[in-house]
Amino acid sequence: MSEQFSVNRLHKKTVRVYFEDTDIGGIVYYANYLKFIERARTDLLRDIGIESSQLMREHGIALAVKRCSVNYQKPATLDDELIIETDVVRVGGASLDLCQLVRRGDDLLVSVDIKLGCLELSKGKPKAMPADVRRKLDQYYLSAHND
Amino acid sequence: MSEQFSVNRLHKKTVRVYFEDTDIGGIVYYANYLKFIERARTDLLRDIGIESSQLMREHGIALAVKRCSVNYQKPATLDDELIIETDVVRVGGASLDLCQLVRRGDDLLVSVDIKLGCLELSKGKPKAMPADVRRKLDQYYLSAHND
Amino acid sequence: MSEQFSVNRLHKKTVRVYFEDTDIGGIVYYANYLKFIERARTDLLRDIGIESSQLMREHGIALAVKRCSVNYQKPATLDDELIIETDVVRVGGASLDLCQLVRRGDDLLVSVDIKLGCLELSKGKPKAMPADVRRKLDQYYLSAHND
Amino acid sequence: MSEQFSVNRLHKKTVRVYFEDTDIGGIVYYANYLKFIERARTDLLRDIGIESSQLMREHGIALAVKRCSVNYQKPATLDDELIIETDVVRVGGASLDLCQLVRRGDDLLVSVDIKLGCLELSKGKPKAMPADVRRKLDQYYLSAHND
Repeated sequence: MSEQFSVNRLHKKTVRVYFEDTDIGGIVYYANYLKFIERARTDLLRDIGIESSQLMREHGIALAVKRCSVNYQKPATLDDELIIETDVVRVGGASLDLCQLVRRGDDLLVSVDIKLGCLELSKGKPKAMPADVRRKLDQYYLSAHND
Repeated sequence: MSEQFSVNRLHKKTVRVYFEDTDIGGIVYYANYLKFIERARTDLLRDIGIESSQLMREHGIALAVKRCSVNYQKPATLDDELIIETDVVRVGGASLDLCQLVRRGDDLLVSVDIKLGCLELSKGKPKAMPADVRRKLDQYYLSAHND
Repeated sequence: MSEQFSVNRLHKKTVRVYFEDTDIGGIVYYANYLKFIERARTDLLRDIGIESSQLMREHGIALAVKRCSVNYQKPATLDDELIIETDVVRVGGASLDLCQLVRRGDDLLVSVDIKLGCLELSKGKPKAMPADVRRKLDQYYLSAHND
Repeated sequence: MSEQFSVNRLHKKTVRVYFEDTDIGGIVYYANYLKFIERARTDLLRDIGIESSQLMREHGIALAVKRCSVNYQKPATLDDELIIETDVVRVGGASLDLCQLVRRGDDLLVSVDIKLGCLELSKGKPKAMPADVRRKLDQYYLSAHND
């Protein structure tokens, strides 16, 4: 594949740490990294034409987290500027595997392996992704992983 | 009215402060008191037979906050046991006025005057409360304010 | 004062609504607007050289909310792009009065009048702002309100 | 060991779901289960005489999360009453392994394997637990796992 179709393998989003994100230990509360990476996923999807509110409104579905494995290596603190890197690892018919990293400069703070499943909200059951959504994800995956 | 029908004027709910509630300043983050008092309101309503999830499911409505005025007097911190006192000040056709206090022992930490409005969720517009809900609130108001 | 020193009267910050901000009613949870406006205040202060983490580390102080009055007019929802406008209304020796508005396009969603107090964190008591902080705030106030 | 010293193997804590915990999908936001289980851990520790605020004040340490692996099986929703079951799996010199389950009646909703590390807050570095804390944890582990 020619280089003109290549995109950055990793989606990057900057997140600033505010008071709301910290706790009395002086660092970011452990659950709040899951908010940061969800913002990054949402932006990645929006960038390729998949908007979460539209998925709910038009299809009654959401990409909900099925599993995540979180490794906390160094803490972030107030006023830090963090970079969230998101790598789409696998696109399935009703699921999506991602690896998401939280960095501060050269430091890796938190790494997360995460599996999303397409969920039919009215039933709380898995459902195949709409063809259009699947196609956009496949296209993104291919260009992101094109060397 | 005889004393046998009298109830406590104030609804009381105990809330414990956890890490999630605090910030790097070592105290409860200011927005989180609004979570504490919302839990107390929800419990008060449930105690008199009005369940929020049922209001949404059966009537498509919610009691949403229209206005609140918050006075922060002393800070709470990790492991504190707080008492939330809720006083129903006025019951209207589509609104509800409350006064809610956050105490720790004899100390008054935060006081809130708050107006809720009955909101039709699909339209985001005010709507009169269902008759049954209005009746339960009127009854509670009368017994709570009966001297 | 010549126009070259004039700045925009209002500080503006863009905030995107993510899943974390919404609730089952389909709209932004009422306490979360207080997070949005706190981010905007923190950015305004940073823009004029006052960093919250530095205030804590070097002076043991924070600008904590003493009072706020919140008017909820229209709800925001998932994927909305909001503008937070912050106007410094008064700079005192140990306090700061702000008016903060949450807008979506031309719509005013939420308005907040808010008073911050300089708090000595170890004692939980009010304290005069450091001279340098006061000077920066006075300068900002003057240029922002210079017609 | 005689039965009179046996305690329940699992620590149980009840958590109610409020508006703050839900999102626009109509279910509990995925990061918020981490808040629920942190409340349960904090209560378990308090029950055996280890208070988080005291650990910070007197020892400058906190039991911070090093790793967690979360499996989301069924969603919780508004007004649900959840049971958090906590099992202490291993007590180390500077770490603690737990298994925590979120149940609603007979349904298992979320399961979490989690490793806590004793963190010296001023340095952000691991530190051996104080002898007294270690002893209480060892005692609890022994009685909880005594058949």
